Amino acid sequence: MSDKAFTWPVRVYYEDTDIGGIVYHANYLKFMERARTEWFRSMGVEQDVLMRDEDTLFVVVRSDVTFRKPARFNELLYVTASADAVLRTNLMVHQEIRRGSADGELICTGIVRAACLAASTLKPRRLPAALMETLA
Amino acid sequence: MSDKAFTWPVRVYYEDTDIGGIVYHANYLKFMERARTEWFRSMGVEQDVLMRDEDTLFVVVRSDVTFRKPARFNELLYVTASADAVLRTNLMVHQEIRRGSADGELICTGIVRAACLAASTLKPRRLPAALMETLA
Amino acid sequence: MSDKAFTWPVRVYYEDTDIGGIVYHANYLKFMERARTEWFRSMGVEQDVLMRDEDTLFVVVRSDVTFRKPARFNELLYVTASADAVLRTNLMVHQEIRRGSADGELICTGIVRAACLAASTLKPRRLPAALMETLA
Amino acid sequence: MSDKAFTWPVRVYYEDTDIGGIVYHANYLKFMERARTEWFRSMGVEQDVLMRDEDTLFVVVRSDVTFRKPARFNELLYVTASADAVLRTNLMVHQEIRRGSADGELICTGIVRAACLAASTLKPRRLPAALMETLA
Repeated sequence: MSDKAFTWPVRVYYEDTDIGGIVYHANYLKFMERARTEWFRSMGVEQDVLMRDEDTLFVVVRSDVTFRKPARFNELLYVTASADAVLRTNLMVHQEIRRGSADGELICTGIVRAACLAASTLKPRRLPAALMETLA
Repeated sequence: MSDKAFTWPVRVYYEDTDIGGIVYHANYLKFMERARTEWFRSMGVEQDVLMRDEDTLFVVVRSDVTFRKPARFNELLYVTASADAVLRTNLMVHQEIRRGSADGELICTGIVRAACLAASTLKPRRLPAALMETLA
Repeated sequence: MSDKAFTWPVRVYYEDTDIGGIVYHANYLKFMERARTEWFRSMGVEQDVLMRDEDTLFVVVRSDVTFRKPARFNELLYVTASADAVLRTNLMVHQEIRRGSADGELICTGIVRAACLAASTLKPRRLPAALMETLA
Repeated sequence: MSDKAFTWPVRVYYEDTDIGGIVYHANYLKFMERARTEWFRSMGVEQDVLMRDEDTLFVVVRSDVTFRKPARFNELLYVTASADAVLRTNLMVHQEIRRGSADGELICTGIVRAACLAASTLKPRRLPAALMETLA
């Protein structure tokens, strides 16, 4: 985990598990989005304001996720987000999920490509300036 | 189950279960909404058209659900929807979920109150005429 | 909100919203369960330990929820949990969800009945002693 | 879409959408799993029986998904599943999601690697014979 990675804690609740007793795989994508949202917030980007005032939203256009180890009910996970590449209208985000602490066992890794779109037309938009400046 | 109850089959997938090995309770509310949506469709109401052409959507304002027996992974459930009361701007829907067949073991019952709202303002709206006519 | 109510913050993410732009109704039940889980934890009950060491889990057997106002994307909600009745094998929990602060606008209220069951047989079990003592 | 691809219809309900008015990205992974489950069933594999009688379950260990076009509320989607590679203890599944018909607009593609595990130990297991024979 790099020095620069933003980290966000996520607790595993009943809702996140499945009959296998472990976190249902699609839910790791939700955890990753929570971390991206909080990472954006840490850079001054509130996505509700972005949508309302600038007609802009983020949409995931690709996610390549490797589920290495199962996360279990009631565990506290730590989810990172860091920029892998910053393009004009989208962002490649590297994400890791660790168990128990920010240095804990690595259980999931992913690359998520988030595109910036006009909410009304779903056409590509430049990334918000606040993100560009911080990530540049 | 009354003669008049609309019935819709729902399969229990991994996504619906939790670590207890049974359907996670909040997911029964999703199953009930799927049945309501298909029931509306059977009366000629397509909710995407309703939203786009008439700025109208349904919002659940109360749900009182009793979870009687657990539903299990991979079971086929049958979910009913029937009108308990039809008001000017909202609808009380009685719903039942049975296991294995439309006459199978009763596992869940609920009363759901769905309000008809203007999508843009979230103000109350009259129910769509197609529903009023069929349910009257 | 009573002096005694345990309160837990919940952020509204993309995953929680629906096309109406507001929190999807079934997700409030998830928020309420997160608050119950953290409330149990505050009384010394870790549900993974309970399941592993005492073959015990909680299952929601009834939920009566009134959705008063819509919660919106990116809002911070405060969810309470307090005991309405403590029975031998189950618990009636009163829950409220408020917007923006613990004294904010009331948007959702509910009574949730959680039964304590043997995980292996789904038969009723006495409530954990730690809960009984604290709630008595 | 190849001649051999198994296809399963999935309706987009409120629960699947987010505030952007489109299907929330993690939910496509659920749709893909529903199609895999039904594909397995079409080959004689019932996963509840597999779990109960043979202590065997499938766990997704990697998913690489490209979200090409948004799916919208109330649309009917067609999800395919076909074997990309059949290994001793896991399966690479190619999946496509199309809009409106089995030949409709391609909106999502993915490769999902599902590992076969012992449910009790989460150790690798050989794929069920019924799958091996049909897919060979």
